[in-house]
Amino acid sequence: LNHEKMEEAREHINTLTKPVGSLGKIEELAIQLSGITNQVYPVVTRPGIVVFAADHGISEMGVSAYPKEVTAQMVYNFLDGGAAINVFAKQINALLKIVDIGVAEEINHEQLLHKKVKYGTNNYLYENAMTEAEATQALLVGMETAQQLLDEGARCIIVGEMGIGNTTTASAIASVITGCSVEEAVGLGTGISNENRKEKVSIIAKALEERKPIRNDAIDILMKVGGLEIAGMTGAIIKASEKRIPIILDGFISTTAALLAVLLEEKVKDYLIAGHLSKEQGHYHALTFLNKSPLLDLGLRLGEGTGAALSFPLLEAATNMVKEMATFQSAGIANERQEDK
Amino acid sequence: LNHEKMEEAREHINTLTKPVGSLGKIEELAIQLSGITNQVYPVVTRPGIVVFAADHGISEMGVSAYPKEVTAQMVYNFLDGGAAINVFAKQINALLKIVDIGVAEEINHEQLLHKKVKYGTNNYLYENAMTEAEATQALLVGMETAQQLLDEGARCIIVGEMGIGNTTTASAIASVITGCSVEEAVGLGTGISNENRKEKVSIIAKALEERKPIRNDAIDILMKVGGLEIAGMTGAIIKASEKRIPIILDGFISTTAALLAVLLEEKVKDYLIAGHLSKEQGHYHALTFLNKSPLLDLGLRLGEGTGAALSFPLLEAATNMVKEMATFQSAGIANERQEDK
Repeated sequence: LNHEKMEEAREHINTLTKPVGSLGKIEELAIQLSGITNQVYPVVTRPGIVVFAADHGISEMGVSAYPKEVTAQMVYNFLDGGAAINVFAKQINALLKIVDIGVAEEINHEQLLHKKVKYGTNNYLYENAMTEAEATQALLVGMETAQQLLDEGARCIIVGEMGIGNTTTASAIASVITGCSVEEAVGLGTGISNENRKEKVSIIAKALEERKPIRNDAIDILMKVGGLEIAGMTGAIIKASEKRIPIILDGFISTTAALLAVLLEEKVKDYLIAGHLSKEQGHYHALTFLNKSPLLDLGLRLGEGTGAALSFPLLEAATNMVKEMATFQSAGIANERQEDK
Repeated sequence: LNHEKMEEAREHINTLTKPVGSLGKIEELAIQLSGITNQVYPVVTRPGIVVFAADHGISEMGVSAYPKEVTAQMVYNFLDGGAAINVFAKQINALLKIVDIGVAEEINHEQLLHKKVKYGTNNYLYENAMTEAEATQALLVGMETAQQLLDEGARCIIVGEMGIGNTTTASAIASVITGCSVEEAVGLGTGISNENRKEKVSIIAKALEERKPIRNDAIDILMKVGGLEIAGMTGAIIKASEKRIPIILDGFISTTAALLAVLLEEKVKDYLIAGHLSKEQGHYHALTFLNKSPLLDLGLRLGEGTGAALSFPLLEAATNMVKEMATFQSAGIANERQEDK
């Protein structure tokens, strides 16, 4: 972060026609965006959204409320414009890329970015989710896709995902990196029963015992539990932060990608904005570990980048505030009473 | 509210391509909007924002961090497009009306709606803030302005205000209606010291003892403590709800107008949406009394309608979700596994 620009931004914001600090988090956001982009008047439009889709071998253990085929079916839905992320992307005039980074079946559609690394991960209860080479390749796919969005004009990156079973993998990652218990890292996913949730906890605990991912080694964690879409998001986050572009995290899964990105490069943390707090309980632990306070808290648990997209207008408002508001001086308004100070 | 339409909306939302309930408050919002507007596919654009401006005689007691002249100066700022509400209104493509309902001086500007009822309220520490006729007239001004916005195409109403000293009046109203103590109803306003806050509490307590506003009588409360802009917002809220138009409340002051509106007409409550939770502590008590959960919590304490405007994209998202998302059937996607149900 450029702390000089942040100080300049703060001073400018304090001259705008409103009581100092009265726009709360919007002001803090504007200052963070100045530090990220190196501009007192930061720009975040157009936003670019990338949704990475992949399957998880662990889904054959029945950890999700939905069958595995739904991953591919939802990818078609993204490509046909019918999913929630399509609707919210359109509302904020975002560039939207759908990437097959590891769906278990072939998907044919001209709008799809075909970057399949593998036909879904292996079931990590029994073997590593992928090889080290595959993990690295998935990271590179993520970096490359983020670069493509930046080349097309994106000035803010939203990372989203689709992958039946991926809250299971995200819980494994969150537990390994943040040190919270598996119990704390597991929620109800897309809507499983409490009984199924208990099974999910014990499957993850057993898998972690078998795989023993190394806490501070992002590649090792990805190789052992996956997932391919999480690696893609990790790569995209790293690339965007390298280019001083703000990244809005979505829910639990994307935040575990951020945990991995921060392991790879500590400075990434400064470029992250938490779009919302998911209802999936592991998200709270992941955000706390990153020391991030979410912009929205709407009880969402969908993913796809939807919560991040919903929060985007707040970033836009922050940048518009800085750019368009009058100052006390330009508007000829009396400032605070002397005697009260 | 039309409960049949709400049920229809809920059933439709449950067929959309996402796990049931996974869009949390966005789904609840969509259902409420269906009940309000009597439409399964509700429309909230364009939003209409009305900012009522007025002065408060009580401000001569030094209850605000800013001198009284700032009310008129900020009105010019609104009219010239330099205030936060101008910036946020533009971002959401809102109709914006600025109404002089009681500023203490003459304001000349062709964009201003001149509906002055009185040159500021009287200092209610010593006498009633206004007459009963003035209170009623201010309510009518509010109703008339809301109608004007609806005639120009507004399908959602945001009520905002400007008035140096109006957190003091709002605290008095909140304390009278919700029964919370004056201490609980008073915050730091636009930024006073803790010492000045104590004075503010004792001034309000003394004024309430002198004026003895009647808890269930909105006109009596307005007459005894004011304010003119609060009465304007109350009238606008009543008119919008009569026309089945959703109203987004802003912060503390606008929510006290809602408290008064609900006293006048209980059903109004159903039409209210809490845009955000203000940092001004009385707001929490007022929202709790109305049983409303705020969409945003960003530590704002500005007013003008800004927090409501910032929350508007969430209403838009709710309506877009209902209208534009594919259903499981139309997208050919498998629904939840049978065995997990």
